[in-house]
Amino acid sequence: MYTVSVRDHFMIAHSFRGEVFGPAQKLHGATYVVDLELRRQELDEDGLVVDIGLASKALAEVLAGLNYRNLDDEPELAGHNTTTEFLSRLIFDRIAARIRTGELRPGAMGLNGMRVTLNESHVAAASYEDELHF
Amino acid sequence: MYTVSVRDHFMIAHSFRGEVFGPAQKLHGATYVVDLELRRQELDEDGLVVDIGLASKALAEVLAGLNYRNLDDEPELAGHNTTTEFLSRLIFDRIAARIRTGELRPGAMGLNGMRVTLNESHVAAASYEDELHF
Amino acid sequence: MYTVSVRDHFMIAHSFRGEVFGPAQKLHGATYVVDLELRRQELDEDGLVVDIGLASKALAEVLAGLNYRNLDDEPELAGHNTTTEFLSRLIFDRIAARIRTGELRPGAMGLNGMRVTLNESHVAAASYEDELHF
Amino acid sequence: MYTVSVRDHFMIAHSFRGEVFGPAQKLHGATYVVDLELRRQELDEDGLVVDIGLASKALAEVLAGLNYRNLDDEPELAGHNTTTEFLSRLIFDRIAARIRTGELRPGAMGLNGMRVTLNESHVAAASYEDELHF
Amino acid sequence: MYTVSVRDHFMIAHSFRGEVFGPAQKLHGATYVVDLELRRQELDEDGLVVDIGLASKALAEVLAGLNYRNLDDEPELAGHNTTTEFLSRLIFDRIAARIRTGELRPGAMGLNGMRVTLNESHVAAASYEDELHF
Amino acid sequence: MYTVSVRDHFMIAHSFRGEVFGPAQKLHGATYVVDLELRRQELDEDGLVVDIGLASKALAEVLAGLNYRNLDDEPELAGHNTTTEFLSRLIFDRIAARIRTGELRPGAMGLNGMRVTLNESHVAAASYEDELHF
Repeated sequence: MYTVSVRDHFMIAHSFRGEVFGPAQKLHGATYVVDLELRRQELDEDGLVVDIGLASKALAEVLAGLNYRNLDDEPELAGHNTTTEFLSRLIFDRIAARIRTGELRPGAMGLNGMRVTLNESHVAAASYEDELHF
Repeated sequence: MYTVSVRDHFMIAHSFRGEVFGPAQKLHGATYVVDLELRRQELDEDGLVVDIGLASKALAEVLAGLNYRNLDDEPELAGHNTTTEFLSRLIFDRIAARIRTGELRPGAMGLNGMRVTLNESHVAAASYEDELHF
Repeated sequence: MYTVSVRDHFMIAHSFRGEVFGPAQKLHGATYVVDLELRRQELDEDGLVVDIGLASKALAEVLAGLNYRNLDDEPELAGHNTTTEFLSRLIFDRIAARIRTGELRPGAMGLNGMRVTLNESHVAAASYEDELHF
Repeated sequence: MYTVSVRDHFMIAHSFRGEVFGPAQKLHGATYVVDLELRRQELDEDGLVVDIGLASKALAEVLAGLNYRNLDDEPELAGHNTTTEFLSRLIFDRIAARIRTGELRPGAMGLNGMRVTLNESHVAAASYEDELHF
Repeated sequence: MYTVSVRDHFMIAHSFRGEVFGPAQKLHGATYVVDLELRRQELDEDGLVVDIGLASKALAEVLAGLNYRNLDDEPELAGHNTTTEFLSRLIFDRIAARIRTGELRPGAMGLNGMRVTLNESHVAAASYEDELHF
Repeated sequence: MYTVSVRDHFMIAHSFRGEVFGPAQKLHGATYVVDLELRRQELDEDGLVVDIGLASKALAEVLAGLNYRNLDDEPELAGHNTTTEFLSRLIFDRIAARIRTGELRPGAMGLNGMRVTLNESHVAAASYEDELHF
């Protein structure tokens, strides 16, 4: 199995609901350094898992839809605790949707798996990974 | 699959028995920077893999049981080469025992897997990973 | 010149005023991974620049006074853009005040310099450094 | 499952053929920081996945066969785009061949899996991983 | 003294002349991860050392003038060994020239110092630093 | 001012005397990842601060004199707390002695400064720096 990964980041404000979150129930924020890993069983005819320029662009665009926001005010996130785990899945789904619509070129339909990791500090991270079937 | 990871460290002295270890047969030591990864198929009702505060506390307590020790003098480690691989498994088992006794809250019984990685320098690391069944 | 450094982090929400900040004028947030460097011309009788445990505690306490906050709501920061540069200086001053009151032990009065660096992502950081005269 | 990893690097020149590569079609180069991960179900009698000294030596020797080269001039790579993905597989295969010939000691035949990751910058990497059957 | 730093990278091919370079006399290449540090005695009225967006843009443009090139073929570098040290200075001078022409806004004339660091692997780096006088 | 830096590591056991050290008074150990920085006002005729191969070799040899040891048993360190600060200075002095005897070539007498940093974990480090006058 081959994997290619690219890194970018975004910066948001949010708060959590639930006693388990302690002081993080207050409005605070985070920088998330994001690693997008794309997996494929065999390389394409160019010797690539994916066009890394298009993968970086897709990641940048998905993160631009979250960057410099207060996630508590985003209608589509209402009712959710925007935990690092939750955001990993959200970004996973948004990247998958872009692959499905051909933004990473039709060949990207040959991707077999994806992992999205959000590093929130030097001591904590979360990720979501799954197989891809197009 | 979701993963959450937390990082901490401990510092020990030890020596190894066996020619394969060369100069490491002498008493020396190491800093191990430890990454604890906890995996879960679905998030809980708070949007979490696990209470990250409790996971960090469990890791800190397990490492406190090793930190600032000469492992050659620890009765429960007698007869073992305390290699990075061996210590990864030891910490895995001790964290798993704490999950089993409910220290990370009963919900942590829903965890599906765990990986413990010990980074021993900028060029070497070892880890142990396995599924979890409670 | 000797230097000792310790690392910790904090997570806040804030917004900026001024066109130069572009989208960062909206409420967003950041994780700051903080490096505190303390400098001294000669080591003390224990062979130390400073008691690293006390230095880490002082840093943790200063960061706790900012952590999980919306800096836009902090009365003592009113009228300031809480840029990474500004926060580096703020933390510098708060640590210096703790050294002055003896929290790092009287011997810490022998410190000659300090630098506070805030890493805000994998591609950006800011710091403030100065000599110390007690 | 246990994993041991070691890190080294090599520096090469190369160019790519195909419009997808844009400006990278020109002769340029890269530093690849390489992580070799070796996996094993159970530890050997010394408490090891593998003799880490021999693993480091095997990695260094394989990388020496590529280091300080213009890959466009290497006959055995002719007709291939030497992408990061491709090079990950190439190094995987060369390490596997060395395990097979006993260079990491006969016990290394007990290895169950391997992953080779090439970090090409602070924002991009590629890897190849597979099971090992000797 | 305040410092702001931003990071980017570029990838080139080159060779060196002189026995001291050993195998690096052959055509090879490197990824350089570049840290640009800009220093200023006092913050401007926005609470900034410099507009970090403009600093990042200036760095990206300077690196674009080197990226994906064989430095042996660049007329303006003829007769020079393009060592990591040499390239640090070259980038320093090109950034300084952009500050002088006002590309980072006239306020950037208040900068007091700059450092350019090129990280060429996980174990080696070089930098050039100097005061700035506009 | 130009700087070149190289990285290596060593692993030792030791204990400290003095209440300030708390649990570190017990025999324990550490991995130190060492950064050696060498500074020079102007580059030599090859475009170098120093022959990086010789600098790496000198660092490796100095660290070999400490690696895999119990520092409590080293006669030349008797009566000293081998703190991270102390060891930074020790390594500084040993590298300086090697420069003085011409091991990094006579041209290395043109070096103007040196810094030795010992990273002991992901959250703590110490260094010693000074000018060089040969």
